[in-house]
Amino acid sequence: MKIGFIGLGIMGKPMALNLAKAGHELAVPERASLTAEIRDAATVLPDAKAVAAWADTVILMVPDTADVERVLFEEGVAAALKPGSLLIDMSSISPIATKDFAARVTASGSAYLDAPVSGGEVGAKQATLTIMVGGPADAFARAQPLFAAMGKNITHVGEASGAGQTCKVANQIIVALNIQAVAEALVFASKAGADPARVRQALMGGFASSRILEVHAERMLNHTFTPGFRIRLHQKDLNIALSAARDLELSLPNTALAQQMFSACAAGGSAELDHSALVLAVEQLAGHSLQK
Amino acid sequence: MKIGFIGLGIMGKPMALNLAKAGHELAVPERASLTAEIRDAATVLPDAKAVAAWADTVILMVPDTADVERVLFEEGVAAALKPGSLLIDMSSISPIATKDFAARVTASGSAYLDAPVSGGEVGAKQATLTIMVGGPADAFARAQPLFAAMGKNITHVGEASGAGQTCKVANQIIVALNIQAVAEALVFASKAGADPARVRQALMGGFASSRILEVHAERMLNHTFTPGFRIRLHQKDLNIALSAARDLELSLPNTALAQQMFSACAAGGSAELDHSALVLAVEQLAGHSLQK
Repeated sequence: MKIGFIGLGIMGKPMALNLAKAGHELAVPERASLTAEIRDAATVLPDAKAVAAWADTVILMVPDTADVERVLFEEGVAAALKPGSLLIDMSSISPIATKDFAARVTASGSAYLDAPVSGGEVGAKQATLTIMVGGPADAFARAQPLFAAMGKNITHVGEASGAGQTCKVANQIIVALNIQAVAEALVFASKAGADPARVRQALMGGFASSRILEVHAERMLNHTFTPGFRIRLHQKDLNIALSAARDLELSLPNTALAQQMFSACAAGGSAELDHSALVLAVEQLAGHSLQK
Repeated sequence: MKIGFIGLGIMGKPMALNLAKAGHELAVPERASLTAEIRDAATVLPDAKAVAAWADTVILMVPDTADVERVLFEEGVAAALKPGSLLIDMSSISPIATKDFAARVTASGSAYLDAPVSGGEVGAKQATLTIMVGGPADAFARAQPLFAAMGKNITHVGEASGAGQTCKVANQIIVALNIQAVAEALVFASKAGADPARVRQALMGGFASSRILEVHAERMLNHTFTPGFRIRLHQKDLNIALSAARDLELSLPNTALAQQMFSACAAGGSAELDHSALVLAVEQLAGHSLQK
């Protein structure tokens, strides 16, 4: 397939290279920052619009909702798409805005999938991303070989546009709240005089067990907060959750509180640390550090 | 060993029977509610004080902090304990009060362990309880064969009295907050128009995975809230967490919020339902039910 790839950041670059490795023709828009590896693997066209006009399938991997809107409707990608082509937005953005973007792209004769990922830079490089997809079944079937070149656990969440983004939001809510759970439990245990590492060990395998207790609790105990996934990005994702919740008219009290805890971390200068550093805000509220 | 067992409720009764099955001599205080099974397996003595005077090891399994205090210091168990005997409190109570109880029992020449459990009625019957133990290493070694007759995952959390209770509190904090996480994520996803069962499926195996996502999410999706572990008991445990946090001077904002959500459930008449019914409070805040 002729794939246009827009957004060659930490995630996008290894994803695009994996598509090229799988034998797909790749085009990207010119940018001073393009590496030799990308220039070797892809055709470089003058801009995003030219990439869209050339491709059968255009993949977006940009930071936030406003970036998707700009690429699609200001830089001319939506208008340049060939009839019958496929637009796949793999960015993590608002599920509400996604419905609107999908309607506008679909109206001009292209198909639209939202397909955000989780698994981070490591998952992008190793082609083991979790991919959560919303959109029509036939478009999903068409995109399946591309997803298979970039990820492993691929779920068609639903036919409605935004279902993939909604699933990603649910993921980010659970991860944030599970981090908060482990942070409060370990800081409590430590201030009460117990060894938090032994407490973690005792809880593994029981009803308190989670991937966060397995992986992030270790980071909290050692205060090793090299990202990983940055607090700043998790704040962005909870902002999507809380904005969508406001639009949908529902209240998410614990998600709102977790966002406030992340804001407290940012206020303390920790926005670029791994999200397990949320424990720093809990430690501050306890006047007590997990570090010996 | 000659074991006195005080507190033959839903948990205590199968635990005592498992000790008898393992070949230990058992005595219990007279009560009209004693079943024939217990009367067959144990010597029935007139009261708790007589049981303590007879036994080498006394095990308590009563509902709350005040019950332990009453049995030990009003019903005369602490005073009746033989010098060199062992008191094991397997109730889930305050880690702060435990330090005081242990100091008073130890002062009169007995050893004290706090050893709360998790795993519920099923774990008690099948002798697969998780047991979290605080207290001196020699007392732990002495109790080990008893624990092995009642449980499976047995951790000596620390030598300090209260370390077992502290670990149990940490467990209950994480479980409550992980339930809250899954409840907010699934209600959000469902109100946003996605199928929450497919969302759950997509998230299993990733960073959002937990025993709660595995087990309690199912109960939420089907609205099957037969306990399980009752909201009323989880409220009791979070009350222990929040009272201890106040005494220790630390703030647990998410734990406090989870307690408020449980209170909202209780206000709605759901206190005797399984704790996964916390989702009912989230549904109410969303004006939206997971049930189709």
